[in-house]
Amino acid sequence: MTRPIFFLTDFGLADIYVGVVRAVILGIAPDARIVDLTHDVPPHDVRAGAFALLAAAQYLPDDAVVLAVVDPGVGTSRRPIALHVSGRTYVGPDNGLFSWVTGADLDVQPTLPGRGSGGAETVVVLDRPEYWRPAVSSTFHGRDLFGPVAAHLARGVPLQKVGSACDRDTRQRLRWPPVFLQRGADGHIVEVQGEIVHIDRFGNLIANLGLADLPTDPVLDVAGRRIDGFSPHFQPATGAPGDLIALIGSTSLLEIAVPNGSAAELLGVGIGAVVVANARA
Amino acid sequence: MTRPIFFLTDFGLADIYVGVVRAVILGIAPDARIVDLTHDVPPHDVRAGAFALLAAAQYLPDDAVVLAVVDPGVGTSRRPIALHVSGRTYVGPDNGLFSWVTGADLDVQPTLPGRGSGGAETVVVLDRPEYWRPAVSSTFHGRDLFGPVAAHLARGVPLQKVGSACDRDTRQRLRWPPVFLQRGADGHIVEVQGEIVHIDRFGNLIANLGLADLPTDPVLDVAGRRIDGFSPHFQPATGAPGDLIALIGSTSLLEIAVPNGSAAELLGVGIGAVVVANARA
Amino acid sequence: MTRPIFFLTDFGLADIYVGVVRAVILGIAPDARIVDLTHDVPPHDVRAGAFALLAAAQYLPDDAVVLAVVDPGVGTSRRPIALHVSGRTYVGPDNGLFSWVTGADLDVQPTLPGRGSGGAETVVVLDRPEYWRPAVSSTFHGRDLFGPVAAHLARGVPLQKVGSACDRDTRQRLRWPPVFLQRGADGHIVEVQGEIVHIDRFGNLIANLGLADLPTDPVLDVAGRRIDGFSPHFQPATGAPGDLIALIGSTSLLEIAVPNGSAAELLGVGIGAVVVANARA
Repeated sequence: MTRPIFFLTDFGLADIYVGVVRAVILGIAPDARIVDLTHDVPPHDVRAGAFALLAAAQYLPDDAVVLAVVDPGVGTSRRPIALHVSGRTYVGPDNGLFSWVTGADLDVQPTLPGRGSGGAETVVVLDRPEYWRPAVSSTFHGRDLFGPVAAHLARGVPLQKVGSACDRDTRQRLRWPPVFLQRGADGHIVEVQGEIVHIDRFGNLIANLGLADLPTDPVLDVAGRRIDGFSPHFQPATGAPGDLIALIGSTSLLEIAVPNGSAAELLGVGIGAVVVANARA
Repeated sequence: MTRPIFFLTDFGLADIYVGVVRAVILGIAPDARIVDLTHDVPPHDVRAGAFALLAAAQYLPDDAVVLAVVDPGVGTSRRPIALHVSGRTYVGPDNGLFSWVTGADLDVQPTLPGRGSGGAETVVVLDRPEYWRPAVSSTFHGRDLFGPVAAHLARGVPLQKVGSACDRDTRQRLRWPPVFLQRGADGHIVEVQGEIVHIDRFGNLIANLGLADLPTDPVLDVAGRRIDGFSPHFQPATGAPGDLIALIGSTSLLEIAVPNGSAAELLGVGIGAVVVANARA
Repeated sequence: MTRPIFFLTDFGLADIYVGVVRAVILGIAPDARIVDLTHDVPPHDVRAGAFALLAAAQYLPDDAVVLAVVDPGVGTSRRPIALHVSGRTYVGPDNGLFSWVTGADLDVQPTLPGRGSGGAETVVVLDRPEYWRPAVSSTFHGRDLFGPVAAHLARGVPLQKVGSACDRDTRQRLRWPPVFLQRGADGHIVEVQGEIVHIDRFGNLIANLGLADLPTDPVLDVAGRRIDGFSPHFQPATGAPGDLIALIGSTSLLEIAVPNGSAAELLGVGIGAVVVANARA
């Protein structure tokens, strides 16, 4: 059986770009299973794409091929790469998109669960045109290069055949947004400051803070509003409906939410908004 | 061959939530066929999800597994359930989402064609963790519980294995929006009042009225506008382009439309708007 | 193995229409591979659908069945058809939607690469109800007629079985937007005028001009802005970021773009905007 291909881009679904890449893949691997992760990464937003991959990676099957194309530099000198991380193979541009799917790149955040334990095991530069479309444009490598390589990998071609090994330390990396921690004399976290890194369709605000980055019994401050402690789920245990709540969400990160409503709308904040958590006095 | 899984949520396609559920399903049933019904049910709108399932149900293959997650109460005491209706199996939260896929729940509307004839045949509460992901979050049962159960059902696990039978009358149910009928001395319908229950992407207004709820030769009144009789299709037989027309649409319900235009835009009305039909004098 | 079905509509993904057609197809061909091209063709916009098919056609596998439904005239006398072009089979309404997937229909633009070389080889009118759903509505032929026919074709039923041959010259055709060319005494292009025919999600403006329609070293004029020559890719070789660039894009047509930005937004123009190219003096 071919390996499943998980597919993420910033192409959107209104154009035929995603469909054309699917067509090219099926031309090479007719029985490929192509599974969309999302194609609504904001245009050219490599950071948002990297976060989406981080959020999805731990749930992918062990033999997944991940085709990820958020590629504002297509046609320039940025390298096309593929990498093995925890058995899975990622294919796409070397522009930081794969920064957060490897544990090694997240060393400021070692506590995030489920990430690859040891970083990228192997990185290759895709330099074997026999695995590409015969004519490669300078504007659509998803169709002409990355898609075909993913199709060949899905059919069982080994990573070493589609490219030349390169030093994994030469990869482009995005910095995980900084977390500022203050610990008390006893080593416990007294205060931490992070930021909103994603807003989902429900208006939930997702921060760059895992459970281990937070005080045990936190008081949160976001956009001038205070939230006391964690809720176990999206419905308020106490308080009026419409109140802000905080919880460790499905991505294992801190989420600020409004039961049956939108925290993003209520607070009027966006990506990058500061979140502060203090240990309860 | 595995049973096909039809998948409906309010997750949207901009986040990776839908993709992650697909990944989890493929981890359990690698050859699963996952078919999206829609993921654009408005956030938390159980009623809109129930209507979408009603509209789709009669067209699904006999062996369909339907995975439906519109679940504002995730993590609370609302029960996870699965039910057999006319050979198909539905999996999701017990919050009314499956109210209208069974004939028994639609007894105010017995004339809607193609619905299950006798209501839910079997209902089980999903209480067998061996068919779930090892760790179940309190915020994402689509990924951790419903998706895995659907995958196991698709592989042929019987309904009785994934949960314990429960009294089907304890299910949560949504009321079908009320229809007010006046009949004449001869039993024919003189006047009926219903409401708009869905607006589609073309701006067609879909009402809670089937052909048997309407006078044979109706004069319709919606948002202060009058429409005489039915059109056979979306192009006006007579009258100027842009005129309002009424027809029995593809969901077997009354639709108000504007040829090549949007009735919703023209009339400025939304879900819940009143529709009155009188027999022509 | 069944033939893959490539699926394009103006149904959007918010309703269950696309999902229902998929369900009907799988009811007939349980192992069908259904690949979405796009479902976000603007409602009723046959011209935009025809352009999307033109852009996708050359990348489809040789055995593709293409199910395309942009069908404002559903239920009227417009004919349901299927046609063979370069080995692929297209199924949908006879309203011009398939105008540009055949070389013969593009004779004003003979230089566009990769199109079918000789026009439609065979055209049939779909008049065999045994390949339809038992009850055909007058409002949803995608579900009741085109989808079922595509499913049967995917399973290997020959084109001649699903309909009666008709004169291919009776097909409805859309005119390719006109291109006005001035050549110099030496036969070289001095000036050409075309128009924007598509705007993609990145805000790239795509014109009805291929490389052979343009002067070798052009100076472009669009919305009162001047662009000198072609860029090889979407990043500016020279000039400030945010500058307009021109390139031959992934559809083999002229594109106006802004590196990491939106040309559509910058220029405030839409479909139909005039583009003029002059040979550099």
